[in-house]
Amino acid sequence: TEPNSPTVKTSIPGPKSIAMKRDLDLIQNTDVVQFFVDYDRSVGNYIRDVDGNVLLDLFTQIASLPLGYNHPRILEVLKDPANISAFANRPALGIYPPTEFAKLLSETLLSVAPQGLTQLQTMACGACSVEHALKGAFMAYRRRERGGSAPTQQEIDTCLMNTPPGCPKLSVLSFKNAFHGRTMGALALSHSKWFHNLDFPAFNWPIATFPTLKYPLEEFYKENIAEDARCLAEVEDKIESAKKAGQPVACVASEPMQCEGGDRYASPQFFQGLQDICQKNGIALLLDEVQTGAGATGKFWLHEYFHLRDPPNLVTFAKKMLTGGFYYTPDMRPTEGGRIFNTWSGDPSKVVVLKAVLGVIKDESLLARTTDTGNYLMKSLMDAQEKYPHLLSNARGLGSLAAVDFPAAAPRDNLVERLRSLGVHVGVCGTSSMRLRSTLTLERKHVDIFADRFNTVLRDT
Amino acid sequence: TEPNSPTVKTSIPGPKSIAMKRDLDLIQNTDVVQFFVDYDRSVGNYIRDVDGNVLLDLFTQIASLPLGYNHPRILEVLKDPANISAFANRPALGIYPPTEFAKLLSETLLSVAPQGLTQLQTMACGACSVEHALKGAFMAYRRRERGGSAPTQQEIDTCLMNTPPGCPKLSVLSFKNAFHGRTMGALALSHSKWFHNLDFPAFNWPIATFPTLKYPLEEFYKENIAEDARCLAEVEDKIESAKKAGQPVACVASEPMQCEGGDRYASPQFFQGLQDICQKNGIALLLDEVQTGAGATGKFWLHEYFHLRDPPNLVTFAKKMLTGGFYYTPDMRPTEGGRIFNTWSGDPSKVVVLKAVLGVIKDESLLARTTDTGNYLMKSLMDAQEKYPHLLSNARGLGSLAAVDFPAAAPRDNLVERLRSLGVHVGVCGTSSMRLRSTLTLERKHVDIFADRFNTVLRDT
Ligand code: FES
Repeated sequence: TEPNSPTVKTSIPGPKSIAMKRDLDLIQNTDVVQFFVDYDRSVGNYIRDVDGNVLLDLFTQIASLPLGYNHPRILEVLKDPANISAFANRPALGIYPPTEFAKLLSETLLSVAPQGLTQLQTMACGACSVEHALKGAFMAYRRRERGGSAPTQQEIDTCLMNTPPGCPKLSVLSFKNAFHGRTMGALALSHSKWFHNLDFPAFNWPIATFPTLKYPLEEFYKENIAEDARCLAEVEDKIESAKKAGQPVACVASEPMQCEGGDRYASPQFFQGLQDICQKNGIALLLDEVQTGAGATGKFWLHEYFHLRDPPNLVTFAKKMLTGGFYYTPDMRPTEGGRIFNTWSGDPSKVVVLKAVLGVIKDESLLARTTDTGNYLMKSLMDAQEKYPHLLSNARGLGSLAAVDFPAAAPRDNLVERLRSLGVHVGVCGTSSMRLRSTLTLERKHVDIFADRFNTVLRDT
Repeated sequence: TEPNSPTVKTSIPGPKSIAMKRDLDLIQNTDVVQFFVDYDRSVGNYIRDVDGNVLLDLFTQIASLPLGYNHPRILEVLKDPANISAFANRPALGIYPPTEFAKLLSETLLSVAPQGLTQLQTMACGACSVEHALKGAFMAYRRRERGGSAPTQQEIDTCLMNTPPGCPKLSVLSFKNAFHGRTMGALALSHSKWFHNLDFPAFNWPIATFPTLKYPLEEFYKENIAEDARCLAEVEDKIESAKKAGQPVACVASEPMQCEGGDRYASPQFFQGLQDICQKNGIALLLDEVQTGAGATGKFWLHEYFHLRDPPNLVTFAKKMLTGGFYYTPDMRPTEGGRIFNTWSGDPSKVVVLKAVLGVIKDESLLARTTDTGNYLMKSLMDAQEKYPHLLSNARGLGSLAAVDFPAAAPRDNLVERLRSLGVHVGVCGTSSMRLRSTLTLERKHVDIFADRFNTVLRDT
């Protein structure tokens, strides 16, 4: 069972982590390895490192753990002999699906599909989910242009040589500070950190400005509306210029909240406007919920807060969903077989575990709990921000996602390190934000521990 | 235990498969779904569909099953309580690796590393393995160009906008008929089937001709040498023109044998020449062993047959290795952290299963068996080809990889279907090739069954 509080015995990384890192560094660059983890003995919201330090984990494997470590319901699934063959025999899902696969999808991924998105493709990680979702959009765009005709022989021949008309000059509009993944299609939409992109050739696609909200929102209502309008106008401009440049936009891709880029929220009005622009121009709207979905915000999908008139065309997921994939509207559905496909096309064994996770979310009302705990956490961040206005600003969050800004990277990193030495592990994002990403099982008592340690560190700063 | 022979009770797909396909088609395009599988009751080299048909499987989930279905040693691993936490807690491997991760890698992936490749990155599928291997090559190329200097501020700023100099105009040379994956970087190297590429914007990178060997090799020795020379000259030409066009080649990528493109082998001399050209031009050589590695050819890696002077710089793997990833030479190693990275960066639970697979390969001398069974299979293909020269040509293979050509797609597809109705399941590739991809546990007795059914169908054609 979960400990009552963190225990820190050594510096972190401790001697064992340092030795293991030395070994691993013989094999690969380990500059970003933080510490080695004893996953066997990590429990719930507490991660235990190999030196025996037990930390309250508010980063949870880059926001990818839905229920925490070694959740009993997950262990149960793994011990159930009925599930073994899903782990022993990974299928080529696109051609040889397992018995009753549609039923498994209905009971799991489809049971939490965003409203209006009836179609579903499983994938294996966030990046391929985005890549293949883009393909859906490109195909839909060209299908409409063809007006029902079959592809020409010239298209078929040229596409094998990477050239138009088979490989058309289409583009995807993305946003500054966005992050969508590290494969070259997803990376073309990612603009948050130089070391993600440097040295890699890239598609020269349009990149628009994502709104920068001013906090507190109540105080800057007008300014934020103007910012929305300015950014939407820029999107329209860039769509127009891309068309003129012979590289029309087939898809607009955005996170519903930019995570890696610094927990940058935008208003529902912004996304409503974005959808209007997309619809007006026959462009697919892709919302990338890899980090924000799976209940992280207290609703299953962040974009539910936007009250969009119509569903977005494509919604990607991964991380807490355990499997990658994307939902889509029927107009994004490929009309030829094998277009959205790879050998594994997902991994049913992950869906089997997801089934248990979704069961727990429902049985224990974890969406409501995430909202409650999130509010409680926000209050403690707000309190701290009020007390230490020279250190903290722009506290913001939704459910298990929360962030606050520091004046610069150095004081932020310093605080994060000291917090860890007191047993609370958090993440960072953007240039100078602290990023909190808890599981859905976090409770007020955990927040109390965070707040206590956070205030201790702030007091001594 | 494995049945002694196939059983076919219904047409394939049978009524249950058809019903399940109808259900799944409500959710996604199912045009390429062949039949639904009862993975619980598939055993060894026999796949059982949901209608109770039991087929000798010579395609094995697109060549991705190393030992067949429900292998006892794999089931053992899955039942071992010591392994549960690897399945229950998928880490963000790049920052929070599990206890003794270097040791796990040493005992598994590194124990079968191609000679000279000391560095290793785990990934999650073939596509991301290729994508990130390319990144290694791009970084190495730019590092050398920078001559030890740090990236400039201009590079750092421009890379976030997808433009040079931060995102330089570099290219990767690939080959006609190649296949490396479906994400946009890997897809830029893939030119085997139109429905993989059509409608998607693509990097305009150089594409050279892969040799077309004439069979039997003994008879066309001179012609094949001339073909090697012609293709190598073209590679040099394209490297030269790419440089002139301001888009220098940082990496040459090739399968050691083109699989999807039609089981197209090239001579060791061709690959030796390719390495010479790469080395002369400071270009990284990537050999993509996703389908050919993991013992499939009787050696652990197909490129061992090439006796290259130096190791290739990058070797990618997936499929039978259960996890994706790539090996690389020290000069391809990133010098900054977090450059080759994503949330999961692999999946240790797959490595845990791989450990058992590698144990079985060793304990049961499966490389030797694969060579023996492969030779036996080749003999039966050769015999058939001799007997039916109007139907079959270019029988070729290495270990568990084998293929033979038909005069056109229609007779090939017809034969494949009739073979299946007799209980033998095979694949296809290229325009008119039958593709065999067995597990490493295939034995002569299985080949006898294949040969019997194959000859029956040929006789009746
Ligand atoms: S690209 Fe997603 S698993 Fe490989």
